[in-house]
Amino acid sequence: MILDWKKLAQKIYDELKIKIEKLNKKPTLVAILVGNNPASLTYIKQKRKFAEYVWMNFELIHYEGNIEEEIVLAKIEELNNNSNISWYIVQLPLSEHIDSQKIIDRIDPKKDVDGFTKENIGKLFLKEENWLLSCTPKWIKRLLDEYNINLKWKNVTIIGKSNIVGKPLSLLFINHSATVTVCDIFTQDISEHTLKSDIVISAAWVPHLIKENMIKKWTILIDVGYNIVDGKMVGDIDFPNLEKDNYITPVPGWVWPLTVAMLIENTYLAHIQVWNE
Amino acid sequence: MILDWKKLAQKIYDELKIKIEKLNKKPTLVAILVGNNPASLTYIKQKRKFAEYVWMNFELIHYEGNIEEEIVLAKIEELNNNSNISWYIVQLPLSEHIDSQKIIDRIDPKKDVDGFTKENIGKLFLKEENWLLSCTPKWIKRLLDEYNINLKWKNVTIIGKSNIVGKPLSLLFINHSATVTVCDIFTQDISEHTLKSDIVISAAWVPHLIKENMIKKWTILIDVGYNIVDGKMVGDIDFPNLEKDNYITPVPGWVWPLTVAMLIENTYLAHIQVWNE
Repeated sequence: MILDWKKLAQKIYDELKIKIEKLNKKPTLVAILVGNNPASLTYIKQKRKFAEYVWMNFELIHYEGNIEEEIVLAKIEELNNNSNISWYIVQLPLSEHIDSQKIIDRIDPKKDVDGFTKENIGKLFLKEENWLLSCTPKWIKRLLDEYNINLKWKNVTIIGKSNIVGKPLSLLFINHSATVTVCDIFTQDISEHTLKSDIVISAAWVPHLIKENMIKKWTILIDVGYNIVDGKMVGDIDFPNLEKDNYITPVPGWVWPLTVAMLIENTYLAHIQVWNE
Repeated sequence: MILDWKKLAQKIYDELKIKIEKLNKKPTLVAILVGNNPASLTYIKQKRKFAEYVWMNFELIHYEGNIEEEIVLAKIEELNNNSNISWYIVQLPLSEHIDSQKIIDRIDPKKDVDGFTKENIGKLFLKEENWLLSCTPKWIKRLLDEYNINLKWKNVTIIGKSNIVGKPLSLLFINHSATVTVCDIFTQDISEHTLKSDIVISAAWVPHLIKENMIKKWTILIDVGYNIVDGKMVGDIDFPNLEKDNYITPVPGWVWPLTVAMLIENTYLAHIQVWNE
């Protein structure tokens, strides 16, 4: 059975559209982009498209790849101090000569709609959930909620330990009473964990890492992987062989829009909080 | 085989003693205590004892249990602004009428030698490890280091999800390449996780939760539990029956001093950083 994230994303957009139409002041999403990384350009295009779809404004600050770190830092400072800008995002990755963490550390946590600052990671850890929860963990939880899947009493395996997927997701699920196992490249045998799991989430970016013999029937499978094999998009989960007897998200194509939907929703939630609408 | 934390704590103190003797300015550890919780009083007594043992100064700010929250907050503000105080701790738990998180949120992260502030939790998450790493996760890692136990390729089960043990420990171990499973009261069957683990750490505070039939031979067992049964201290791990064929920490008595040793070490590390000694 397919876990239909496309449908969920559409539902979120349509609900937001109605809510935003009623606002006196339209929310604006500001994004900083450095360079021309193709994935980043696609992402930014999606963000603009869906922001505009729900009648938000979208402003892009686009720097050349060789921009000096100091100039980006000065812009961050300016955005922090500009009371008309209530939130903004910095599209990752930045160029290699720029220290991404240094940039993120300078974002005012109250304006950090991506939830990447230490302050907002701390809030996630302490279960002070709000509109600053980062987008990938947020949509995964939301997708499960949509299908009334409670995390309590569930064994969950998360594969991958990145700062924007695996680690924040594990904290979110730990806080919601799941029994969480987090695997990485140094895990001796991933299948000994996945075989006893009710939910498996892969964000390892390894094509078809999760195969039929690694899971029991009717596992909930969420694929955050995104791999190009012979010019074709392929997930971490062997969708063709696992589609039949499991609850599964389809092969790539909709990870990004659902992440974007959460960002747009975060921006809306931040807006009504900041402007008391 | 016993994992001798008593010996390790003594070693840490003796090394610190030599280092602190050479300092021009003696470090001072300042602690805020509210009320007369017996466990807190014991803890504070230990902190004073070992601070003084390594020739540090110890200052206690002791309020009555019914103190107003505002007064504690004002003291925090004063300590933050006092350039002679480089760090301090707030002994938990506070009285019930005081919002502990509100108090912790006001501590200047640079002075937060317990590592409880959101900023310092964020640093732990991002593997920016420093002297602000909170004390219980820190000693567990240190004890494993002492016995040359590498976390890479290891299955680890952590039982308990508190903000000061289970959750920060899981982040620390995730960052050090362990495959980490975090269980709580909603875990269907703890033994299915512990039976395939190389390391089991219990911080559930349930007497003898971990029994012989729940682990394989020669598991590394670390007991952070502390329970009183019939007036006697008992750990989470059934020590009498598990002592023989495992690597195991002894029944309570030395959890506290090792936690205290880490606090004293953090204070020393903070001192040399702040005062450039």
